[in-house]
Parts: sequence; structure tokens; C-alpha cells
Amino acid sequence: MRMPTPRDSARIAVLAGGIGGARFLRGLVAAAPDSQITVIGNTGDDIWIHGLRVCPDLDTVMYTLGGGISQERGWGREDETFAVRQELAAYGMEPTWFGLGDRDIATHLVRTQLLNAGYPLSAVTEALCTRWQPGVRLLPMSDERAETHVVIDEADGTQRAIHFQEWWVRHQARIPARSFALVGVEDAKPGPGVIEAIEGADIVVLPPSNPVVSIGTILQVPGIREALARTPAPVVGVSPIIGGRPVRGMADACLTAIGVETSAAAVAAHYGARAGDPPGLLDGWLVDDADAESVPGIEGLGIVCEARPLLMSGPEPTREIAAAALALAARLRP
Amino acid sequence: MRMPTPRDSARIAVLAGGIGGARFLRGLVAAAPDSQITVIGNTGDDIWIHGLRVCPDLDTVMYTLGGGISQERGWGREDETFAVRQELAAYGMEPTWFGLGDRDIATHLVRTQLLNAGYPLSAVTEALCTRWQPGVRLLPMSDERAETHVVIDEADGTQRAIHFQEWWVRHQARIPARSFALVGVEDAKPGPGVIEAIEGADIVVLPPSNPVVSIGTILQVPGIREALARTPAPVVGVSPIIGGRPVRGMADACLTAIGVETSAAAVAAHYGARAGDPPGLLDGWLVDDADAESVPGIEGLGIVCEARPLLMSGPEPTREIAAAALALAARLRP
Repeated sequence: MRMPTPRDSARIAVLAGGIGGARFLRGLVAAAPDSQITVIGNTGDDIWIHGLRVCPDLDTVMYTLGGGISQERGWGREDETFAVRQELAAYGMEPTWFGLGDRDIATHLVRTQLLNAGYPLSAVTEALCTRWQPGVRLLPMSDERAETHVVIDEADGTQRAIHFQEWWVRHQARIPARSFALVGVEDAKPGPGVIEAIEGADIVVLPPSNPVVSIGTILQVPGIREALARTPAPVVGVSPIIGGRPVRGMADACLTAIGVETSAAAVAAHYGARAGDPPGLLDGWLVDDADAESVPGIEGLGIVCEARPLLMSGPEPTREIAAAALALAARLRP
Repeated sequence: MRMPTPRDSARIAVLAGGIGGARFLRGLVAAAPDSQITVIGNTGDDIWIHGLRVCPDLDTVMYTLGGGISQERGWGREDETFAVRQELAAYGMEPTWFGLGDRDIATHLVRTQLLNAGYPLSAVTEALCTRWQPGVRLLPMSDERAETHVVIDEADGTQRAIHFQEWWVRHQARIPARSFALVGVEDAKPGPGVIEAIEGADIVVLPPSNPVVSIGTILQVPGIREALARTPAPVVGVSPIIGGRPVRGMADACLTAIGVETSAAAVAAHYGARAGDPPGLLDGWLVDDADAESVPGIEGLGIVCEARPLLMSGPEPTREIAAAALALAARLRP
């Protein structure tokens, strides 16, 4: 049987977080080299640190697709050094737990300088990408600041909110999260081109990014969820959960906080079926072979579902996963 | 003959530029370990670069006395790396000629963050010194921005002003300077403690710093020259010119621009005698043995002058130069 494939010039919109999203995107670029890919990147993880504006997810996408990423860590630059961080610690400057590398700092210096000069984050991101040539159009979800904070319990029974990065990097998501608050999102607008990319897409893809603090964050920007509901393009997702565990990162801690089970089926149900009532996000969903038994239940929600290997263990398996997502989308709207 | 020496707790005020001043200060601390030394540092060389506030002279003093200086270069940090600079160049960010090291950048990040938080440069400098413990009180000449610009000729016969660092670092002072302009100085006030340090000193020292763009810049801050005229302390200087050449740096290019010959005697005459008419700055002046023949002429101006070795070729010779300056001061006011 000949699988339907997207036409070469397909316009593909992808909502992406950091490492998982970036690796999937590398596979997508390989699977559809002539397509026009627009990435709507999560900026809820962004942080001002030591006076620098850091956009971890945008940079991970940019470095990964631009060939500058540390393959070993999955974030930050290859051949990285940490002289500045060591010196900042010697000055007693908090926080010391954030992994600011020297090469990486140059990116933040450029960004901070341009932001302070009045350029919006979208223009700054485009400027940074002129160096990295990621082969996709990389758009921040919003030019406005909307930062994820995590509500945690204190020893005395009270609660307080800490920046997502403090919870994620410093505490490795080991402190139970009561909830997440996207501070500032009510005043945020989708970044320039975001709505147009979703509405004008031939295919929309949700890669195996964190459903709560990556994809979930992007969906909270007023107007983006509505654009996904409206787009004529099929929306297909790739499960970030394999056999009840996150492919990478600590998505389980995030899902638990919002009362969603860490399983491919539960995430599909959380996103919901566009055909469902109330309408959700997904037309199609890829799960790993390890979760094949959940396919009938997911299809029962009104989401076309396929099981296949989803471990992004290298460039070729990742390209095949992306190709499978595109093929699923093509099947949904040939 | 027993040389008079300053009492142990002598209050010494020093006007200092960068490398030459810092090395002299290291000798002064060794020569008078129990004295209270206040350094009034030149900030006319300061520059905003890549969004960071850089204070080359303050940092050179701080690093030199705090044990962090590159011995080889005389500026910047030892064991320095330049990853950030290399990356900024890869982004096409100008200027690329300024030697921003990675370790050094941490200092500028701390400073910039504190300045942007509203702290004055004097408080920021004090905060940085809590790490470096330079053994002196380091005061910026002013908390206000007053930046040295250099007027140069263009090929078409017009003139333009460039930042001092562009002239000094990028062009290595090879473009003839028409004049220097200390932009903003008319609105600058002496930094907190500066006037008190001069007026309350037992001894004031002008080290072998650049007479034009280091000492001369400090003297332009309204009120500082008047405080020097008023102080009961003897003011002694150490010639930065030996045998018609600068000890280090490119002071000759600066002196030429203001019409002063590059000689120990001409610099002494440029500073002038406090006892002279009109009154100048100096009570005493040390010249190198190579300039011994100029001693009578300098004394004829009303400045007590001695010739001795002035090459700061190592810690011990430098300590001896500083001790000689103190002894000269003690002789002027036993």
C-alpha cells in the first residue's frame, strides 16, 4: 500500500517546547525538506537572570536545528565552558543553579541588548536566526512576558510560587507542584505570525513536548487555542509518554500536578478530540508500540490513532516518526 | 641620614588610571601596609559595550590589588578565555575590537545589573571590592557618566569624535588626536568620599598614570582640582615619562594632542607647582635617573624634585618607588 505523503511545499505549523520538540523538529525538517515549517515556541520558561533575558526553549530549537546544540546535554552549546558562571558564583551572585554557559551567554547578550533597545522578542528571535539558519521560521508564542510559576507547599503549610526554572532546574521537579500559573498571560497576545501560521497551515503538529508546561503554556495564550479549533488543517500529535513514562524530562511531575495520568492515552484525552464534545485539539495521535493496547480507547474518543516506535534514538528513527506524523495528517486530509 | 617616613596610619589619597596606576598602587600598599589608602579612579575610559558597563581603570586597580589581574597583559583576568567575544563576533555584533574576556564579563554583568537596579557606581564598586579585597578604598571619580571622546580628522578634512576606547584599543592611538572631550563632565560631581579623601589626606600621590586621559580626566571633574589646591597634604607625583618615552601605554600620543612635550619636565610643568603663580598641583616630583638633568629646571618651577630609578620592573623596585614618593612627601611636611 502506498502511503499518502504531504505535497512538497506543505505549510506545517508546530507548537514546540525544548529538547523533545527540537529533536522532533530535526526529524521533521529531514522528513519534509521542502516544506515551510513554522515553529511556535514556548516562552513560558523564559527567565531574566543576571540581567540577561534567557529563552531556553527558543534557543534549544535554534541551536538544535542550527547545528550548535550540545548533543550530550540536549540544551546549550556544544564545546561549552562555564567561566562566567563560576565567576558570578565567586561574586556571590544568586542564582548559581542555572546552567549559563559562556557561548550561550553571547546569545543572551545579543537578545538583551536588542530587547532593551525596544525590539520585540519576535524580531530579536528572527535576528538571532539569521546566524543559525534553522531551516524553519521560529516564532515566540508571544512578544509579551508570560512566565510559568509553580505553586509549591512550604514546610509550615503555606504555599508559595517559584519560577518554573527554579522548580525544574534547581529542584529537578522533585518538590510536588500544586499548580502552575502563567503569570502575565491574560495580557499576552499571540506573537506576530502565530495565528496566521496556524490558520494557514496544511498540517499542524504537536510534537512530543511537555503537554503541560510547553504545549499547555502555548495553548494558554489568548487566541491560540481558538486558532487551532478553527484551522482547516488536521492537527496531529506525537505522544511524549511511552509506556507510562516521559520520553525525556519530567513531564510526569507536571501531569500529576494537573491531575492527568502519565500515559499516552491520558495525554490524548487531556488534549481532547477536535471532533469531540466539547471540542478538543487532536485529529490524530501517534503512540508508541508499547502503548498499542490504548489505541482502541483513544480512537473511541474520536481521535485517529496509530501505534509505532516513538523513541527518538537517533536522526533516522526521528525522521521516521516525523514522516509518520505527516503521513497520518495526509491520511486525515489527503 | 635617616629618611623621614610617614606615620603608620597615614591617610594617602591617590588619583589613578589603569595599568601604571595599579602597579604603582601595589607597590604603595607594600610600602605602607598600615596606611589608609583611598584611590580615586578614572572613569572617563568607561564604556557601554554589548549592553554591559565596563570600567577598565577601576577593574584594573581592583584586579591588580586583589590578585586577579593578568600579569602578562596588565589588564583583564588571569587564565582568561574569550568564548563570549568569539560568539558575539559570530553574531556579527560590533564592536569586535574590545577585549572582553569571559571571566571579566562576570564583573560587568554584576555591575550592569546593580546599576540598572539603581545603585550608583560608587556603591557598585564597593560591592565588587567585597570580593576582591584590594586593601584600598576604591572610589570612582564620579557617579555620573563622563566619557572621554577623541576628536580626529577624517579623510575629507572634517573632524569627528570617537569614544576613547575606539581610539586607544582599536586604533592603538595611531590616529592623531586633535583634542579630547570629556562628554558629560560639566554635570558630573565628585563621587561620594572623593573630596573628603583629598582634603583629609596626609599625603596625596599622583602615580605614573597618563597625565592627560587618566589624571587629567579626574582633574576635570568639577571640584577635584579645587580640593587638591586646598588640601593641607603635600601632593607628590611620579613621572610617567622616562627618558622622553612613556613608561607604558601611549601617553605620548595624548601629550602631543594637548601640546605638551613627552618629557618628565614638561609633564611636571603641565601639572604645575602649587607654590607657583598661577598655582598648580605639585609640591614634589620624582623623575627617573635618566632625567636627572631636568631636576634643576623642575625645582626652578617651585617643585621639589628628586631623581631615582622609576622603572616598575617588579614588586620590589615598585615598592621602593612608592616608598620614595612617601619619603618625599614626608620631607615636604615632616
